[in-house]
Amino acid sequence: MSIKKICVVVTARPSYSRIKTALTAIKNHPNLELQLVIAGSALLGRYGNAVEVIEKDGFTIAEKVFMVLEGENPTSMAKTTGLGVMELANVFYRLKPDAVITIADRFETIATSIAASYQNIPLIHIQGGEVTGNIDEKVRHANTKLADLHLVASEDAKQRVLKMGEDPNMVFNTGCPSIDLANQIKSNSALDFDPILKYGGVGAEVNWKEEGYIVVMQHPVTTEYASARKDVEATLNAVHELNIPTFWFWPNVDAGSDGTSGGIRAFRENSKPKTIHFFKNMEPNDFLKLLVNSKCLIGNSSVGVRECSYLAVPVVNIGTRQHKRQRGNNIIDVSYNKDAIKKAILERISNTTITSESIYGDGDAGAKIAEVLANVPLGFHKTITY
Amino acid sequence: MSIKKICVVVTARPSYSRIKTALTAIKNHPNLELQLVIAGSALLGRYGNAVEVIEKDGFTIAEKVFMVLEGENPTSMAKTTGLGVMELANVFYRLKPDAVITIADRFETIATSIAASYQNIPLIHIQGGEVTGNIDEKVRHANTKLADLHLVASEDAKQRVLKMGEDPNMVFNTGCPSIDLANQIKSNSALDFDPILKYGGVGAEVNWKEEGYIVVMQHPVTTEYASARKDVEATLNAVHELNIPTFWFWPNVDAGSDGTSGGIRAFRENSKPKTIHFFKNMEPNDFLKLLVNSKCLIGNSSVGVRECSYLAVPVVNIGTRQHKRQRGNNIIDVSYNKDAIKKAILERISNTTITSESIYGDGDAGAKIAEVLANVPLGFHKTITY
Amino acid sequence: MSIKKICVVVTARPSYSRIKTALTAIKNHPNLELQLVIAGSALLGRYGNAVEVIEKDGFTIAEKVFMVLEGENPTSMAKTTGLGVMELANVFYRLKPDAVITIADRFETIATSIAASYQNIPLIHIQGGEVTGNIDEKVRHANTKLADLHLVASEDAKQRVLKMGEDPNMVFNTGCPSIDLANQIKSNSALDFDPILKYGGVGAEVNWKEEGYIVVMQHPVTTEYASARKDVEATLNAVHELNIPTFWFWPNVDAGSDGTSGGIRAFRENSKPKTIHFFKNMEPNDFLKLLVNSKCLIGNSSVGVRECSYLAVPVVNIGTRQHKRQRGNNIIDVSYNKDAIKKAILERISNTTITSESIYGDGDAGAKIAEVLANVPLGFHKTITY
Amino acid sequence: MSIKKICVVVTARPSYSRIKTALTAIKNHPNLELQLVIAGSALLGRYGNAVEVIEKDGFTIAEKVFMVLEGENPTSMAKTTGLGVMELANVFYRLKPDAVITIADRFETIATSIAASYQNIPLIHIQGGEVTGNIDEKVRHANTKLADLHLVASEDAKQRVLKMGEDPNMVFNTGCPSIDLANQIKSNSALDFDPILKYGGVGAEVNWKEEGYIVVMQHPVTTEYASARKDVEATLNAVHELNIPTFWFWPNVDAGSDGTSGGIRAFRENSKPKTIHFFKNMEPNDFLKLLVNSKCLIGNSSVGVRECSYLAVPVVNIGTRQHKRQRGNNIIDVSYNKDAIKKAILERISNTTITSESIYGDGDAGAKIAEVLANVPLGFHKTITY
Repeated sequence: MSIKKICVVVTARPSYSRIKTALTAIKNHPNLELQLVIAGSALLGRYGNAVEVIEKDGFTIAEKVFMVLEGENPTSMAKTTGLGVMELANVFYRLKPDAVITIADRFETIATSIAASYQNIPLIHIQGGEVTGNIDEKVRHANTKLADLHLVASEDAKQRVLKMGEDPNMVFNTGCPSIDLANQIKSNSALDFDPILKYGGVGAEVNWKEEGYIVVMQHPVTTEYASARKDVEATLNAVHELNIPTFWFWPNVDAGSDGTSGGIRAFRENSKPKTIHFFKNMEPNDFLKLLVNSKCLIGNSSVGVRECSYLAVPVVNIGTRQHKRQRGNNIIDVSYNKDAIKKAILERISNTTITSESIYGDGDAGAKIAEVLANVPLGFHKTITY
Repeated sequence: MSIKKICVVVTARPSYSRIKTALTAIKNHPNLELQLVIAGSALLGRYGNAVEVIEKDGFTIAEKVFMVLEGENPTSMAKTTGLGVMELANVFYRLKPDAVITIADRFETIATSIAASYQNIPLIHIQGGEVTGNIDEKVRHANTKLADLHLVASEDAKQRVLKMGEDPNMVFNTGCPSIDLANQIKSNSALDFDPILKYGGVGAEVNWKEEGYIVVMQHPVTTEYASARKDVEATLNAVHELNIPTFWFWPNVDAGSDGTSGGIRAFRENSKPKTIHFFKNMEPNDFLKLLVNSKCLIGNSSVGVRECSYLAVPVVNIGTRQHKRQRGNNIIDVSYNKDAIKKAILERISNTTITSESIYGDGDAGAKIAEVLANVPLGFHKTITY
Repeated sequence: MSIKKICVVVTARPSYSRIKTALTAIKNHPNLELQLVIAGSALLGRYGNAVEVIEKDGFTIAEKVFMVLEGENPTSMAKTTGLGVMELANVFYRLKPDAVITIADRFETIATSIAASYQNIPLIHIQGGEVTGNIDEKVRHANTKLADLHLVASEDAKQRVLKMGEDPNMVFNTGCPSIDLANQIKSNSALDFDPILKYGGVGAEVNWKEEGYIVVMQHPVTTEYASARKDVEATLNAVHELNIPTFWFWPNVDAGSDGTSGGIRAFRENSKPKTIHFFKNMEPNDFLKLLVNSKCLIGNSSVGVRECSYLAVPVVNIGTRQHKRQRGNNIIDVSYNKDAIKKAILERISNTTITSESIYGDGDAGAKIAEVLANVPLGFHKTITY
Repeated sequence: MSIKKICVVVTARPSYSRIKTALTAIKNHPNLELQLVIAGSALLGRYGNAVEVIEKDGFTIAEKVFMVLEGENPTSMAKTTGLGVMELANVFYRLKPDAVITIADRFETIATSIAASYQNIPLIHIQGGEVTGNIDEKVRHANTKLADLHLVASEDAKQRVLKMGEDPNMVFNTGCPSIDLANQIKSNSALDFDPILKYGGVGAEVNWKEEGYIVVMQHPVTTEYASARKDVEATLNAVHELNIPTFWFWPNVDAGSDGTSGGIRAFRENSKPKTIHFFKNMEPNDFLKLLVNSKCLIGNSSVGVRECSYLAVPVVNIGTRQHKRQRGNNIIDVSYNKDAIKKAILERISNTTITSESIYGDGDAGAKIAEVLANVPLGFHKTITY
């Protein structure tokens, strides 16, 4: 049996956690060879320098692709994607992979899909079939229609991909690799590091050891660009008024990120918050330990829906970003309203009935993904089933 | 009621026939304003200079977009598409349309879809929901998932778009504007011009007036790039041996076009065919008259499936390009085999039972499209229906 | 006499001051029409949002061009320039100017030069013929060789352009428009605003009213990318230790700007300087008033060489960025050394012999430029003179 | 002594002859390593597929860069160049050469210069300092100003580069590698192959063996785009009327090539010339033998100025393309006028006084170039000498 070359394109910090255990499994599989491409904001210091974490984790990087166009409007998102298609077309032309993996639904992931499928390289889509609304929704399902093989993260997602007309022989529910990481720390979840000592960051020296802490991670919702700043201010003020020690993570790159970042920066200058400490980034394992030991996660990260459901971490989910995504009993949903956010946080941190659920897998997604890749015959001709 | 600005992007000669009557209806509608963008091969002399025909038809061109990258492999198709996203993002940023129309399923049409949807401009997809196989299949359905409004050409297509999870309030079967053109010439179908006199072209001075003639239009099938030349040679040899006066049209641009064009060019030098005359392009109306008065259309053009079904023109459809597309009684399908092609042509030109069918509309698609555009509220938020 | 359409491309905040009075003169000239294109970092909030100042000054913007690629290495500078060529080629194709003006020597200015000259549009280069060393040096002289008409800022520069083989009929010493602005405020130089009140900014509430202040503006030197952070730290520490009220301006965009910005940001967090206030940007007139009333300008801005020479403002020029540029008696040069910088600042602020010089013009450059544009016949064929 | 990695970018068929012996010398030098990049029209079948010849000659290709944008106006030339900068920036980022070589003055060569110099890679310009007029003139001298080391082809060129202000220690007259090829065949110049048998081509089976033949190679002059077709028609008609067996070579890629190609194609269809045979391409050695044994070279190729001067081949040089380039006694210059061209051809083919000259070297340029590369210390900081 010949070795299959599997090219994986990681374009952002959060995508790395969604694929890390699969990367390891591919790298270690006797019949697979990993070609890892790091692109977009995963290369940029402003967005957490994911590339350094990836290299530290022992992965060899086959190519780096600089493709993020600066700007403060959705035009730059579109142009970044177009540039990504051009650059990734070159990359695949050089690497000649047997298949390419595109991950989930960030706007630039369709660049990977086009560059591969147009060159007749079998395209594998990870984590399709979910539902959110907004531009991610369009991108995710378009990726599904460009892909030849679908490795989804939940049974719900699998049924949706099948309904869209994909071949049942090419749709597999492997679970989500992010749950693998959650599983790894489940048995070893003590917070064995000092977040501020290890990761620096800026802001107040919060008294987290004695009082406990909450975690905030709020990304701009790109189709509501103009209000990104206002949205984040509701959360900033709610958290500020609660006066609980808080670890706040900067947002990742997209059209509104300057709105969100600007809002945070202005708030820091003006309100000089005494209970909020800000981080740019954290290694995935450390981040999960931080969550497990927190009182609550606040914001709109999909981590709240996935890992936190598995780890039984309380979550206050704000706004429309995770709209309609399947969720567990750990979540309470609120709108961009200061008082509603405050009330929800207080409710969650006092709730004692939250239990773990396996909606997104049992912790073996990476291994399952590698097995499917090794065993399923890959092609690039497909026709809708109806 | 305010005027809606509708931006239509035409990227190739054949797409123009698929939208022409809709362009006229939009232009003439009191509540609509047409912003016509001509891009890609529609601007290039090598591919028929569609832009000249369009200007001659009285349309004002808002922008011209040069985006076709030269090359002889699928890499250039991908890069052309990426460049198209970048360029069209600029165009929509400047024109600020209320909605953008992308047409059908050529590879570069997804550039229009991304540039519009990423900038939160409502996207309208014309002629989705059909089935063909190969890269067009992937592109067409990806366009569907990026689009907010669907104007499909047949009932069959409408049902398929709905099954894919699109909102029933946003899917309309308007029929295909190409049938409108066919309808216009139905009552006035005499061949009132001399094709060679009017269009020049190269090759033999065939005796079409007395002997009648067949028409050939064969495009490369892009996912079978390497064999494009071999494929066209089967047809060239079949037609050459039949010795019937033939009007042959050069292919449109894509990864294999140099293979197809090269095959034709070599054949001309070597075999010096005495019964084949070659054209680069023809005005849509004249082309339809040519078809109505022909003995048979040979090749893989979708004109065979659509207009010829409505006009009851016999068709020999070669290979996989129209694979699974709904078809009428006028068509006979064959593979890339010289003898099979010869046999099929002889069968078709002697068949007297072919009748007209309205699978792709009744000849009023342009007007219906303009009405939907004027009356349906357009947005850019959507969620899959299941 | 027909109207000549003059397209000016402004790509960065500092370039605007170098052209502003010429823009006004072109706009007001009966035989000229201004087509103003704003591109690159001039559109970005991170780099001072020059576009807002320009619009507030009453100029109509013909096109905005987003072209800055994010990244932390010189590769992104090159790619930004390539993208600029592609985008500006489109812009000139649409605007059809009679001539295009490219300004000075920033890396992306060659994009303007190529996009114009390759399309046979007469190219005008402003402020060629000067000497600095590093990549600006290469870009400036390459712009000269691509340009058809040269409007230089000093006699020294004129002689150098002629020596390079340019046609003497096409080289004019108009002086620099930045001196026009300096001239305007010479008779009205009182600091009639409170910088912190008007411009906000971040950092200490320095006691500038009573103690006076110094101004710092230090840009990264791109060919010494790795050391940008170290370079700025020398200045930060020198200024910090001197304990004089300081207004510090953030750097403009290029490959090392994250190094410089990062150095400043880290210094603020760690050293919490009590006498430094930071600004992102200031209207050109206000900035000049700030300089005239300061004790000294420190850094490597060309403002120190030009405007400050005319206005007799003392300058400590650090490092190689203004290397070999003609300078007046107001300047003292030092290397990236904390102690040398401290010593030079102390020397300058106590020096009372500094006098005004007119090396870069007498304050009528804008009007002279418009006159040359209106009267000199423009072409795009040229041959070296020897 | 460590090995220097020398990256050479070949962007077109004619450039290959200008560098071939240097490529071999670099490849074979113990202290040099060759990184060969093939880009632009050198990859395209329409322009002679230079890449096949290069591979057949035994060179390993490090990267292929598809960057030619289709189009029929100068806009596509500019955009091709911009795309080239973006693509080549990636290539140099990956290959990490110690120096990059850009060749002569084709429009896209400046892409190589920018991509290298902006990334602080020492840039070497081959064949600068010559004079022609038109866009090549601007590009060539701009390349000189971006380059750190200059390897020129004649004493005249060396003096011109020095006058432009380049460092005398970095300017070397090595002669032109094209003369090396001419030198190789000088002692073995018999026409030992049948051109039509070996290279195919299209058109008449001319009686070259008995009657002798002339050779035509005419490229479009890009700044006179609109008249490219008219220009080539003068030559076509002149040659047609002379009725001498003719070998005609298709033009290389630039903005007017469709005009020139279109003119030739139309002429073939309409005039059915009986004495002209057309070739797309020929191996350099064979081409030189063809020239040595011809009666005369007609057109505007620089081969007429260089190789033909060394080989004493009579040349009729048409139009402005070689304007002001240093030339020998073998050349007669004419304008785009049928009768003038006819008269000049008749004069040249009967002239018996033409002698060989060594203006562009003695046949050892390749070896000299490799020696300079191995021994001269390379840097990327430079300042004009005056």
